[in-house]
This record gives sequence, structure tokens and C-alpha cells, in this order.
Amino acid sequence: MAKPQGAAFWMGAQTLPIPMTMFRDNREKVIGELRKVRTFDGTALIVLQGGDNISHYDTDVDYVFRQESYFMYLFGVTEPGCYGTVDVASGSTTLFVPRLPSEYAVWMGPLLSLDDFKQKYEVDAVYYADEIDVKLGELNPSVLLTLCGPNADSGLEAKPANFKGIEKFVVDSDILFPVIAECRVIKSPAEVEVLRYVAKVSSDAHKRVMKNIRPGWHEYQGEAEFLHHAYSVGGCRHVSYTCICGAGTNSAILHYGHAGSPNDRLIKNGEMCLFDMGANYNGYAADITCSFPVNGKFTDDQKLIYNAVLAARDAVCGAAKEGVSWVDMHLLANRVMLGEMKKGGLLQGEVDEMMSAGLNGIFQPHGLGHLIGLDVHDVGGYLSHCPERPTQPGANRLRMARTLMAGMYVTIEPGCYFIEPLLNKAFADPNLAKFLVKDEIDRFRNFGGVRIEDDVLITKTGIDNFTLVPRTVDEIEAWMAQ
Amino acid sequence: MAKPQGAAFWMGAQTLPIPMTMFRDNREKVIGELRKVRTFDGTALIVLQGGDNISHYDTDVDYVFRQESYFMYLFGVTEPGCYGTVDVASGSTTLFVPRLPSEYAVWMGPLLSLDDFKQKYEVDAVYYADEIDVKLGELNPSVLLTLCGPNADSGLEAKPANFKGIEKFVVDSDILFPVIAECRVIKSPAEVEVLRYVAKVSSDAHKRVMKNIRPGWHEYQGEAEFLHHAYSVGGCRHVSYTCICGAGTNSAILHYGHAGSPNDRLIKNGEMCLFDMGANYNGYAADITCSFPVNGKFTDDQKLIYNAVLAARDAVCGAAKEGVSWVDMHLLANRVMLGEMKKGGLLQGEVDEMMSAGLNGIFQPHGLGHLIGLDVHDVGGYLSHCPERPTQPGANRLRMARTLMAGMYVTIEPGCYFIEPLLNKAFADPNLAKFLVKDEIDRFRNFGGVRIEDDVLITKTGIDNFTLVPRTVDEIEAWMAQ
Repeated sequence: MAKPQGAAFWMGAQTLPIPMTMFRDNREKVIGELRKVRTFDGTALIVLQGGDNISHYDTDVDYVFRQESYFMYLFGVTEPGCYGTVDVASGSTTLFVPRLPSEYAVWMGPLLSLDDFKQKYEVDAVYYADEIDVKLGELNPSVLLTLCGPNADSGLEAKPANFKGIEKFVVDSDILFPVIAECRVIKSPAEVEVLRYVAKVSSDAHKRVMKNIRPGWHEYQGEAEFLHHAYSVGGCRHVSYTCICGAGTNSAILHYGHAGSPNDRLIKNGEMCLFDMGANYNGYAADITCSFPVNGKFTDDQKLIYNAVLAARDAVCGAAKEGVSWVDMHLLANRVMLGEMKKGGLLQGEVDEMMSAGLNGIFQPHGLGHLIGLDVHDVGGYLSHCPERPTQPGANRLRMARTLMAGMYVTIEPGCYFIEPLLNKAFADPNLAKFLVKDEIDRFRNFGGVRIEDDVLITKTGIDNFTLVPRTVDEIEAWMAQ
Repeated sequence: MAKPQGAAFWMGAQTLPIPMTMFRDNREKVIGELRKVRTFDGTALIVLQGGDNISHYDTDVDYVFRQESYFMYLFGVTEPGCYGTVDVASGSTTLFVPRLPSEYAVWMGPLLSLDDFKQKYEVDAVYYADEIDVKLGELNPSVLLTLCGPNADSGLEAKPANFKGIEKFVVDSDILFPVIAECRVIKSPAEVEVLRYVAKVSSDAHKRVMKNIRPGWHEYQGEAEFLHHAYSVGGCRHVSYTCICGAGTNSAILHYGHAGSPNDRLIKNGEMCLFDMGANYNGYAADITCSFPVNGKFTDDQKLIYNAVLAARDAVCGAAKEGVSWVDMHLLANRVMLGEMKKGGLLQGEVDEMMSAGLNGIFQPHGLGHLIGLDVHDVGGYLSHCPERPTQPGANRLRMARTLMAGMYVTIEPGCYFIEPLLNKAFADPNLAKFLVKDEIDRFRNFGGVRIEDDVLITKTGIDNFTLVPRTVDEIEAWMAQ
């Protein structure tokens, strides 16, 4: 793709240029919404602080830098140690960048001048971060709007901007958070193209893994293959979360791949793989799961579970659109899946009764999906104006309970897992055990699990699915047979 | 390689098993040295705190976990949130691990029992971290030895272990640091095999990059190729530092590849590449630099600079051994390189006078190399009993000024760079300018730089070079022509 005329983030070659106008549009959206909720006397300034480098403990090695997501949303700045301000009335935007000693040029290359930064990020002014209190003081602002609020997924708080001298200003850290978080929920047309791009890169990377994998690989070799394609072809230096590459029983471990289980098991012939991996392009996330037999050929049992999950996914893909409740979509997916499992002889009784008893939470103990954007579990699921977290088993794991709106970008990720402690719990509970066909279920105890996860844009009439991977049994078998 | 009988870290397939006895030997070495420097009354316990997960800001996504190096050195534990203690008298070793709620099994897989941890790490006892104060109290220790001391490369301090109730104990945070840091300087036979392995993996990854690269690649595609080989073939989930992949003038930027310049430039035909990349296996580091023409064929100018650096590297490889001063090796490398540049017509005058004037620091503004081990810039360079940092230009950048000892593991990494601000500084200083042949130097202004970096074990009689890559012009051209 050709680089656009104006300033842009771009990794060259076949990667997507992200014009800096996208971040300007984000700023204009936020100040527009702020002006709707509040009238400001004098000069109100949004002040955000970007991320800093983080070292490995006391050493001089840093983690590869990742920008803080709210800061990225408004400014698109890839360097650490910056601040950014936006005048709520005029939209005038200023960056404050680290003042680096001139000898750093030996280690870091030619240092960008203030004017270089101004060109690079298409902002109105750039100063050094060590003069932020003076430069803001000259504007005599009536209030600084900083960011503070809870992240519903982590339980942590966004950390408001801080700098030496901030105590001289009137600071409000309440107004901004719900406004900017809600702005991030609805993606702009330019953001949609970035998300479409990173979903395509991730889809292709998954396809490469599926084409090359074979019994005898270790799980991490799938991860390595994905990372290579995402970076080398897609220009994605980061992934959006630690790759989950479980095979066999590991495919039923929802957050497999962590430090204690680093995707390090040998994959045996006949096993299912559940690979949940998403690239990240300039902060924007993909989050895609493919489930497939490592040898490229489904057994009947594998088909049964896979098709039950696929039916759930297809049902949601056919029903989701603006105005539909996300909780209803979760329950729809669960109902369809349980119905298929009943048809397959694993369950008995009425599906509605299974749902009432909470059997859905045994086989799918996680939510149907979540908002996604600059964070893989994106902000805005449980803002104060949103419906509260449901209480039913399974649905209580939902990362949002909102009514869908056009421009929301979500994952649809039904799954079916045979998890020992949950199965044992179900067999021990007469209200659940009565639905289980024990001999059949027992046959699946070492099966693991299946998840199918797409990243889709909600529209007024349905969805636009950005995930482009083989999904039916036939498609997967044909792709892997190549 | 086959998995050994006892417990081991192992990534399967062709990767190296690291037996837990290696960490036991590290512990025994440390307590042996402690007992030499101090007599302890009663029960003295080493207490170290391992690393914790670090989230991306306020989100629920973590960086892929990396263990703290001192903790890894003594215990080999790969999970976050642990403590470890060693009884200085008996060597008895106890781990304290996080107590996870049973429902975590759904997300993390079957939770390890205390006994599982005991088997996995071959320690004497395992308890939960939340009972550390009680369990240590039962031992009625005379002193807890925690770790506190400066990292000479970062300027940061090792953070001593801390836990609720530690104030009930006598704590000494001075004794341990110099002893354990000095122990880490001399590698054990088992550690040597790990370092040999990760250097081999990294060498092979460099070779793959050199074989596949071509003009028209972006620099990061070289990085992606390296990462893929290191992980997929070598089982190395991490690299030891952010990959430095500079081409053309970027090859003269010593720490290129950072967030502001993420290896994102197109590599043009005729350019030199300087790729500095090292894999990491269970904490143990490699740090290797290869410099080569992207098209596989050196020009005469490229040969001149490359061979000047190679001559410096060869001189050091021929002279380094136990008993030799590292500062002398640095000066030897610089002298040889300047001599070659003089032969090539770039410099004029006496090499000894160039050295006295500090011209070496213009063309190689960094040290000859550094200790390497669990940290890529490993600890022990400037402990209190060691020679102080030199003051001469170039040598003042050395990360140690010690006399070499058998069992030290160091990088040898001479380089020659054409760095605009340093060249301008040299031309502006009559004491330096008189050595420069201006027309010749000017021809190289857009050349970039060359670095050749090997990881070598110091022996009583010389070195054992663990870096196995094509090094001469002929070797590189032959390898890249394949």
C-alpha cells in the first residue's frame, strides 16, 4: 500500500499506513462529546500522560515499549515519556516530549527536533516535557481534565497525568473518563480500516500455522509461526495478548500459555489444537481463535463438538446487529450449542431446562465475547450508564451486557470445553447431572475443548466479519490438506 | 536431546534440558562463599523474592513474564509471585508459592500442589507465600539475608525481598549482594553448557537471516526471522534485549531498534546491515552481532571497514585469557582497528598518538564488551573490590575494568562507526582532525558502521568462542551465496 500524503504510522511494504488524521478525528470526537455533557468557562484542557519504558527489574534492559491506550487513541505517539494536551474549545493540540541530551544521538540516532515531532504527529505545538507546567501556565487554563477511572476487566484504575507543578492548577479527574471511554466504544471509519487490517494479518498468520503444523510439533512452534507472519508480513511487532496454543487436554485451559505452562507440550497425532492469537498494529488489536485437528482430519467426535460450537457461532453471526442485547446473544449461543450436544447424544432433557439449571456455564465458563479495539478487552463494557453484569452462570463472565450499537467491534467466541473440575461439579449436582449422558461425556474427558473466535463489526443490519479463516470442517480439512 | 532423569527445564525436541541440579549447585556456591566471608551464629537464611507479573498499564493483559535474574540463579523458578530461602549452614532450600483459588484451574489448568512444586524444582520444602512469616518464624533465624545493591549498568538498585511481617526479623541487606554477584561472574560447568546452547541457537538464527535476507526487505523482517528461529527451533520465547537491526546509516546507531526507530526502514541494495540479536533460554543470554552487505557481496570500501574490525576482533580473541586486563584488551582492539584504517588510507599519523588523543573513542564510542550471563549486561563489572571505571574516551564506556579470570563469559564486540556528531566533533578539534584524511572520511559519511560481536568463555590459556557464524569476508559471501 502506498504511503499517504500526510503524516502516518507505516511499517512499509504491504502494511497499512495509519494517517495521523485518524487521531485528530478521535480528539475532535472526544471534545465534541465533552462539550455536550458540560459547559466549560475559560480554557479547559485535556491532559494525558503517555507510557514510560519499563526495565526488567534493576537491569538496563527494557521491555519493548507499548504505548498506553488512551494516549495512543488521542495522539498516536509511539515514543515513551510524553504528555499531550487538547484544548476542549478549539481542539488545539500540544505534545510534550522528553528533552534528550545531545549525546544520546550516538545511541539513538539523530534526535527529533520539536518541529520534527510536530510534523510527525500533525499537532499544533510541541514543547519539552520538563516545561509542561510553565507552558500550561501561560494558557491560564480554568481546568485540566485528567483521566481516572476503573478498568472493568482488570479491576485496576487508569492513572491520571501527573507532573511537577500540577498542584498549581485546578484539576478534574472525573469528567473525562466516561466520555473518552464511550468514544472508544464506537469505532471511526479510519479505525475500522486499521482493525480490518490487523484482523486480516492475524487471519493469514493463523492460516499459515494451520497449513504448516503437523503432529510432533511443540505447541510453541505454532506460536512462533504466528508471530513470524504477523511481524514479517504484517509489520506487527506486538501481539495483543500472550498466545494461547493448547493441544489435547490443554485446549480446555482457557488462559493456557502463561509462565507456568508456556505452550511447551508436544502435540500428538489425533489431538485437537485450540490456538487463540491476535496481532497488534500500532496499538490496535485482533483476537482470533482457530480450533482444528493437528493432523488436518476431524474424527467424528471432533466434528460433533466442533460443529456444535460452529452452530452457536453461526447463530450469533446471523442474529447480532444494532439494537440486540449482548446478553441475549450469549444465551443464544449457549442454547444452540447445548441443543447440538443433545442431538449428538451427550446431553438429555430440555435445553431450556439445562439453561435454567446453568449447564451452559459448565461447558462454556466464559462470556460470548467482548469489545475489542486499542485494548484486546476494550474499555466501555460496564460504564456507569451501562447495564450491570448479569448474575447467571456463564453470562456472569460477560465483559459487557450492553445493547449492540453500529460501530461497536466485538469478538464472537463461543466454546465447548471438557474441564475436569467443572464436569465433576456437574456430576455431583443432581440438578445438572440429570442432563448428562455419563458414558458419552466420559468418552470426552480427555478431549480438551473447541473455541471459534471471530472479530466482527456491528452494523445497523448485522455484522461485518473481519476474520477470514477456514471455518467449516470441510474448509479446514481442505486448507490443511494443501 | 533426551530429558535427563531428574527435574529439568526443557522445551522438548532439539532443545537443551537444564537440570535443577544446576541451581542447587549455584546455591551451594553462594553459601560456601558466604561462610568464607562471615561466621553466622544460629540460623542465617538467604531470602530472595522472585518477580511478579506486570500489566500493560491498567489493563488485564500482562507482559510475558520474565523471572528476576538473582532469583533465577538460585532457584530456577519460572512462575511469578514466589519467594525462596536457603539456609546458609545446611543449604536447605524452601520455596514459597502463590496460593491460587481452586477455580483458577479453569483458566490456568490443573494447579500444581506444594508437592508438585517440590518435585519440579527439587527443593527441600514448599509452602504458600502468604505463610512465609509464620514458616520463617518457626525456624527462629538469627538473620535474614536479603539482596540490595547497585546495578552498574542501569544505576538502579536490586530490591530486597519484602513480605508482611518481615519487621519481626533481623534483616541484613548488605552481606549477600557482593557475594552472590561475584558468584554469578564465574560460570559453572552446567551454566557454561546453557550459554553454549543459547549462543548456538542465536548463531544459527543469525545464519538463517543472512541466508534469506535480500534488498527490499525491511529491517524488522530480519528481526522477525531471527525471533522465529530462536523460538521455533531453539525454544527461546524471549530475546535478551530488543533486536538492533540497522541497515545503511542506521547501522551506526548503537541502540537502534527502539520505540522511535523500530527497525522499520527499507534495506536498499548495496547497504551494510548490522544486526545485533541474542536469544534467551530460561534466563540465560546470548548477544551476537553480525555485519554483512545485504546483497551478499562486499564492496572494497565495505571490506576495508569490515576487515579493520575483524582484525581488532582477531587480535583480542588471540590475546584474551586469564590474567589479562580487560582494559588492555579494549585498547588493543582500538589500536589494531586504527592501524588498519591508517593502512586503508582513512587515517594518517602514529597510531599511539591517535590513541593518546582519544581518536579511538570517535570511531568506537562503546566498550569492547561486557560480562554476560543471566543478564545480557551481567552483574559484577564494578563491585567494590574491582578496578574502577577508566576515564579515557571509549574505555570509559567499558562495563568492567577487571582482570580476566577463567570462567568469565564476555562479549568481544569491536566496532567502527561513522557517526555524524562524533565526526564533526573530531574535525573541529585540531588534536583529532590532524589524523583524519578528510576526503577519504567524507566518502564514508553515509556508510553506517560495522560491529562484530562474539560471546566467549575465558579460559586459563585463551578463549572458547561459542559464536558459530561466518566471520571472514569470504565466509560471509560464501554463506550468503547459497
